[in-house]
Amino acid sequence: MRLPNHIGIIPDGNRRWAVNHGLRKEAGYTWGLKPGIEIFKICKELGIKELTYYGFTVDNTKRPKAQTKAFTAACVEAVRMLSKEDASLLVVGNSSSPMFPHELLPFTKRKFFGKGTMKINFLVNYGWEWDLSPVHNLDSNTKYYLKSSEINRVDLIVRWGGRRRLSGFLPVQSVYSDFYIIDDYWPDFKKSQLMDALNWYSTQDVTLGG
Amino acid sequence: MRLPNHIGIIPDGNRRWAVNHGLRKEAGYTWGLKPGIEIFKICKELGIKELTYYGFTVDNTKRPKAQTKAFTAACVEAVRMLSKEDASLLVVGNSSSPMFPHELLPFTKRKFFGKGTMKINFLVNYGWEWDLSPVHNLDSNTKYYLKSSEINRVDLIVRWGGRRRLSGFLPVQSVYSDFYIIDDYWPDFKKSQLMDALNWYSTQDVTLGG
Repeated sequence: MRLPNHIGIIPDGNRRWAVNHGLRKEAGYTWGLKPGIEIFKICKELGIKELTYYGFTVDNTKRPKAQTKAFTAACVEAVRMLSKEDASLLVVGNSSSPMFPHELLPFTKRKFFGKGTMKINFLVNYGWEWDLSPVHNLDSNTKYYLKSSEINRVDLIVRWGGRRRLSGFLPVQSVYSDFYIIDDYWPDFKKSQLMDALNWYSTQDVTLGG
Repeated sequence: MRLPNHIGIIPDGNRRWAVNHGLRKEAGYTWGLKPGIEIFKICKELGIKELTYYGFTVDNTKRPKAQTKAFTAACVEAVRMLSKEDASLLVVGNSSSPMFPHELLPFTKRKFFGKGTMKINFLVNYGWEWDLSPVHNLDSNTKYYLKSSEINRVDLIVRWGGRRRLSGFLPVQSVYSDFYIIDDYWPDFKKSQLMDALNWYSTQDVTLGG
């Protein structure tokens, strides 16, 4: 089976899952933590080289306080959990904003844990406009300025929760990505969903726009 | 029914359609011209405000000469056909390259035809890197430089030919777009395919990443 080098994970549907289970919307995020570690372990086992999690975005921070608090805490916890694994961890997002959790500041430079074999990127307070906006002392040798330039091209994006959109996920790294949508909500993650996505991906041609 | 303001059309599958019909690959493109006008007329009737066609890209120009010649000619003809309708026409792409057809140079500034009610954008020799690459005298007031800045945010992207990817289509205008994939090839366009896409779109929430 032809595997992607780099998978982007959009773990959507936590709030809808919570509501379906009679919980408050903001209670959904912690139920996404276990799936996050599970998918890491499966990908590591398969030999996937790079994984990017869509944590939360600048757009998301406009939500009610109870929700922003809950998803921020879940992201901090997810990074803490991943730092117990064999992984190299990088957090990418606007860290000069008060919405960026200070606990994750050390991760804005890539850190290596255990054997550090697998590359993990975690988007936290990420904004596509922030990513693309140029700085003043633009090096004329670079074609464009990209704050997420340490993150490689994404081969396969898997989105849970049924929406068929990127919602601002890494616009440059996603230009050639194949999208796979899973209708179930992220807290209902099952290994078979990822395997279906990988099986589908292996049947796609890779043309990089050619 | 809640309609999108702006639809992006990725008319893929012309070559596969040609091969299936015992034709040479490059013969497929002219069979995409009639669908192009049909979809314009349906959208105009529905009151869609803006339509963007994915003509050809810088990436596509690496294909064999017979193909580049054929899809370039088809794009020139498509713009000519659209210029007989009530539409305002803008061609967006790298026009300083020899791959850009000189016949379309006058359209790199928006031109109005008939009542000029509907906004049509046609991407010709378009490249996402070209679009995003900054210029030297970057106005410090603009957040980022975008050569396609005259094209508005795309609400719905409809792709024919079964591939589930953007292939470099307007990365900035697509950050919040909903994607709808039709497995049939573009020359087999039917009104019902577009109507299915619009019905689906009308059931989606619009959060703009929020």
